[in-house]
Amino acid sequence: MKKYYIILVIILSTWNCYSQDMYNLWLQYKTITSEQHLKAYKKVLSNVQVNSNSETALLLKEELVKASNAMLSTTPNFTSEHPTLLISKFTDINVNLKPEQTDILQINDEGYIIYQKSDQIIITASTDIGLLYGTFEFLRKIQLQHSLQHIHIVNSPKTKIRVLNHWDNLDGYVERGYAGSSIWDWHLLPGLLKKQYYDYARANASIGINGTVLTNVNANALVLTKPYIEKIKALANVFRPYGIKVYVTARFSAPIESGDLTSADPLLPEVQQWWNAKAKEIYNEIPDFGGFLVKANSEGQPGPNNYGRSHVDGANMLATALEPYGGIVMWRAFVYSENNNEDRAKQAYSEFKPFDGKFKSNVMLQVKNGAIDFQPREPFHPLFGAMPKTPLMMEFQITQEYLGFSSHLVFLPKLYEETLQEDTYALGKGSTVAKVIDGSLHNYNLTGMAGVSNIGSAHNWTGHPFGQANWYGFGRLAWNPELSAETIAKEWITMTFGNNEEIIKKLTPMLLISREAVVNYMTPIGLHHIMGAGHHYGPGPWVDYLPRPDWNSIYYHKADSEGIGFNRTSSGSDALSQYNTTIQKKYNNPKTIPEKYLLWFHHLPWNYTLTNGKTLWEHMTLKYEEGVQQVSQMQKTWSTLEPYINSDVYKEVTMLLTIQYNEAVWWRDACILYFQQFSEMQRPSSIPAPKYNLEYYKSLQFPYAPGN
Amino acid sequence: MKKYYIILVIILSTWNCYSQDMYNLWLQYKTITSEQHLKAYKKVLSNVQVNSNSETALLLKEELVKASNAMLSTTPNFTSEHPTLLISKFTDINVNLKPEQTDILQINDEGYIIYQKSDQIIITASTDIGLLYGTFEFLRKIQLQHSLQHIHIVNSPKTKIRVLNHWDNLDGYVERGYAGSSIWDWHLLPGLLKKQYYDYARANASIGINGTVLTNVNANALVLTKPYIEKIKALANVFRPYGIKVYVTARFSAPIESGDLTSADPLLPEVQQWWNAKAKEIYNEIPDFGGFLVKANSEGQPGPNNYGRSHVDGANMLATALEPYGGIVMWRAFVYSENNNEDRAKQAYSEFKPFDGKFKSNVMLQVKNGAIDFQPREPFHPLFGAMPKTPLMMEFQITQEYLGFSSHLVFLPKLYEETLQEDTYALGKGSTVAKVIDGSLHNYNLTGMAGVSNIGSAHNWTGHPFGQANWYGFGRLAWNPELSAETIAKEWITMTFGNNEEIIKKLTPMLLISREAVVNYMTPIGLHHIMGAGHHYGPGPWVDYLPRPDWNSIYYHKADSEGIGFNRTSSGSDALSQYNTTIQKKYNNPKTIPEKYLLWFHHLPWNYTLTNGKTLWEHMTLKYEEGVQQVSQMQKTWSTLEPYINSDVYKEVTMLLTIQYNEAVWWRDACILYFQQFSEMQRPSSIPAPKYNLEYYKSLQFPYAPGN
Repeated sequence: MKKYYIILVIILSTWNCYSQDMYNLWLQYKTITSEQHLKAYKKVLSNVQVNSNSETALLLKEELVKASNAMLSTTPNFTSEHPTLLISKFTDINVNLKPEQTDILQINDEGYIIYQKSDQIIITASTDIGLLYGTFEFLRKIQLQHSLQHIHIVNSPKTKIRVLNHWDNLDGYVERGYAGSSIWDWHLLPGLLKKQYYDYARANASIGINGTVLTNVNANALVLTKPYIEKIKALANVFRPYGIKVYVTARFSAPIESGDLTSADPLLPEVQQWWNAKAKEIYNEIPDFGGFLVKANSEGQPGPNNYGRSHVDGANMLATALEPYGGIVMWRAFVYSENNNEDRAKQAYSEFKPFDGKFKSNVMLQVKNGAIDFQPREPFHPLFGAMPKTPLMMEFQITQEYLGFSSHLVFLPKLYEETLQEDTYALGKGSTVAKVIDGSLHNYNLTGMAGVSNIGSAHNWTGHPFGQANWYGFGRLAWNPELSAETIAKEWITMTFGNNEEIIKKLTPMLLISREAVVNYMTPIGLHHIMGAGHHYGPGPWVDYLPRPDWNSIYYHKADSEGIGFNRTSSGSDALSQYNTTIQKKYNNPKTIPEKYLLWFHHLPWNYTLTNGKTLWEHMTLKYEEGVQQVSQMQKTWSTLEPYINSDVYKEVTMLLTIQYNEAVWWRDACILYFQQFSEMQRPSSIPAPKYNLEYYKSLQFPYAPGN
Repeated sequence: MKKYYIILVIILSTWNCYSQDMYNLWLQYKTITSEQHLKAYKKVLSNVQVNSNSETALLLKEELVKASNAMLSTTPNFTSEHPTLLISKFTDINVNLKPEQTDILQINDEGYIIYQKSDQIIITASTDIGLLYGTFEFLRKIQLQHSLQHIHIVNSPKTKIRVLNHWDNLDGYVERGYAGSSIWDWHLLPGLLKKQYYDYARANASIGINGTVLTNVNANALVLTKPYIEKIKALANVFRPYGIKVYVTARFSAPIESGDLTSADPLLPEVQQWWNAKAKEIYNEIPDFGGFLVKANSEGQPGPNNYGRSHVDGANMLATALEPYGGIVMWRAFVYSENNNEDRAKQAYSEFKPFDGKFKSNVMLQVKNGAIDFQPREPFHPLFGAMPKTPLMMEFQITQEYLGFSSHLVFLPKLYEETLQEDTYALGKGSTVAKVIDGSLHNYNLTGMAGVSNIGSAHNWTGHPFGQANWYGFGRLAWNPELSAETIAKEWITMTFGNNEEIIKKLTPMLLISREAVVNYMTPIGLHHIMGAGHHYGPGPWVDYLPRPDWNSIYYHKADSEGIGFNRTSSGSDALSQYNTTIQKKYNNPKTIPEKYLLWFHHLPWNYTLTNGKTLWEHMTLKYEEGVQQVSQMQKTWSTLEPYINSDVYKEVTMLLTIQYNEAVWWRDACILYFQQFSEMQRPSSIPAPKYNLEYYKSLQFPYAPGN
């Protein structure tokens, strides 16, 4: 026995490095450390009955085997005799074991109920996908080492459409991608179905994501041609058993680029017929195709405005084509025009607010969390709460375009939570963005959340190992927008690094502070859009040479000898007027506006005195320094975890934190030096002197910064 | 015991998929299956003495631990007491254990001796790198389950410079790359040293590759700027202990692009000074920097001809700059001019032959294996054997630009072997290309071999799992150009899939036939360069619209109603005159030329009768069909191996073989239909009818074919 034990130990230690293979994401299925739990879990997983032979049920069984082998070192026995775990749709459960009718009424098609009846644990749902979701939830409970005693979970997704948006081009380049190239090998589809496609679907299913937009919003019409439809079909076939639908971006001018027509005017019958025929062609191949995501008349993309038609005309034409098959249109609200002098923050609202109620019922308006563009911090988009008759879909960015690419550790669920918990006051106090999104506020017929993917060819999917937490967190919040960032952080840490108190205790606050850190060292107290031009890498508050005013940093910070900030109050651009009056009142006054939004809405003198008694200049510069110190603290915290973390991951994150620290210092020094030209005030003595002068920082060029 | 045994089995089966993680390449270190060998190996690896504390020695020890744990389930005990394995430089070995002086004299700085003295096995060398190479050789013997009894290996690399050429752009795109994007994360260098960099170096060291050219031959001057030198330095530091030097491509116009000068004329003192200073700057940071690879005056790249200077002027200027530091220039012979009507196959020879003996001693001329461009088959380049006073370096392509990208299984060592074993007759019979390359024919002071890398971000490095065999085979042949393709095939198969007779017996012939298969279904009997334009994907014998004559397929096949083939005999372009007269005589006559080169050198009538009695038309078309059948046979062979191969790898290769089969059919049908227009002869009845007509094949467009 001793001999085998030794061999066992050797094998375990040899494979230890693989047991932290970050390719496996949050499904690491680490060995259960608590003897008591281990015993209980083993018992539950000893005899498993799965009342279905669908492809999805097969996946669910494979998952149970994989998880059980890894976490419990046992293989479940699949049997219909005295099961300890029963997985079955309602309809196939014995009367005496059925769940409560009240529970059944609480869940929708994708929901599940997990409960105990005598000695059995039962996972039930109305669909196979519900069973799969229930199984992942059940396994998560085990990963988190929760007790299964008297378990009673009744859970349904609060939104219907939970999708990743891949900004992936057909040549494999990922716009704003920082984790390598696209995971879609379009060239070898449909012939090669990479294992990674299955692993991608599995990971998404484990957090409830039920759709994927395969292509970039800056769209290519080629994806709508026959060879590409074949490729999309192959992916759809892979994803289907995981409950995931495929969507693509529809380039508005596709009828022209296909060579079929000379116009894409949505009111022309031949254009409408073209799209109707295209929809038919797609659905012939992919009966459960999800639909189209469209970026129209924005940043050079074609759209209905090219023909003097409205966004409603464009969206409804596509919606009409998809309607017979149950497809939807996700129409992006991210539009701003080069011919519009209005504050860019106001333009989407101005454009779309008048259209409320005019879209077809299978159109959703996809709105970014804020009115500018995925900044480290933005006030919630004024469209939330303003479109009671138009289903609004939240668009969050998971890829860190403006938050340090894939080298900065930033836990984004904290950002998502902040936006979701903001109160729009649309129907009085408590009208949070979350309630807009989950449809409960306005009784939307469609609900959804989109996340711009941070996934690429990197072996760990996301470049930064902690980027995985943002994918995970997005999925969890799309399922339930009321989840707290802290809960998500603890789940992800435990599922990824194991149930180790030391790790959880230290990493949780580190994740939770990380987003505030990046705000501080990049754009404190309401500053925004002051990064390098084009690639958005590093500080660039001096950018003033781009052709459009609202592409330049100086448009946003408006620093001058008088002060700094964008006056969006009634005395300025009055963007505030797009918000509820409760908010207007509070935000209109620099003394009552939350400090985090101060310079977003106000232009204030450098020596303006804040409630804390500091001048604006002093406070702003100290915030930059605070961000640097927060990263420094993250480095210290991480260094204490060396004994508990796989050494490859430990080293990688250590190097990335050093990069992050150096870039935080770079942001601090470049921004302070730049703004100092206007304030002509001293750098507070507690902030170390900059290593270089302003000219140096301005001279830095990064022609091959990724994702551009 | 039974219980632990069960656990063990479960763990083994759970991790089985990882034990065939193709990321580990040929260093899979599978469990030794022979009890007898296992015992012997365990004994040898029980007590190991390593007489060095260098970084390289540390790596070597790590490798022994890794290999021993995985193959033998034991961990070596490092000790200086009664070692069973001694690893030590000559100088540190006791007199009574020292190797024979005759053996020592046989090896160079990178060589090693492995021998037995009483009960000890000793690995010795004059350098730490030699010890590392010896260790890898020793471990290879174990992987191959060779007996260590009376082991006596005296081995040295036959070439000095054994480098990979990465055609990787600074934005991460890999020209002619089919395995994803570049593995170099330039953006995050020098801050992030990816684990993959170490694994890359380790893999290369295991096969004796001692250099890497990091950047594309279509060069970017930015790589010579300070920030990039810092990045290169970081990689050099990683690679150094593995015996690997870094090189970059030098863009000839860099002095202009740097903004420093207005000319790059190599005879201008300020240009020379610029390069001298640049070399100094680089060597200050990277004392063992390898040197420059240069593509000049070819396909739009700048070069000395731009200033009316010669390749000698250009190369020697750079060589002068590098000389003080021991750096070398690898100057590519791949030049052909748009203003030259001479047969493209002749131009490199015409250009460089007159320069023989005029280059500085630290210049190597890097010559592709054939005179056109990495075709499925080419006669050896006429420069081999023609430059006795200029060290010629072989350039093979490992990436399959013209051989099916990363979806075709083609074992390239068969191609390499064919070229290396060709006889140039330069100094009489037996003057093989291998002897030119290893320097033995002309006593070159420098020798080398370059392989254009097939490595990318794909988890298995090369896209096609069998692409790894080509990387492996290139390294082995660079070390020893006399190795046989069959030996290499068996080594790679065993090291990758384990020592299983069934696998070796079946895969070896499959690998060895695979290259002939691709020649048959793409370009049989001397056809060449008839693939799709630009991307080189799929058949394109009809390509006739590119601006330069020699970019078009019709330039190469010259099919017309009279016949087909490129007359390169004395009655044609007389490219034959660039070869030795022995070859000229043989090749000038279509009856005596090897059939495989027939249409490379001869234009022959469609009804020309071959020695086998068939007409040219019939033979050519049947060759296409033969290629298809060979792939079909490969599919059958592979399918019999399902029980022995990890299921993920099995499935992936099965899908890839299907793609390969379909593309082989596509090549056959498109080419036969196209040439049939001219021959006006029947397709032999044994060849299935094409599925589509010629217009269909001509209409296919692949705007996003990879690597373009």
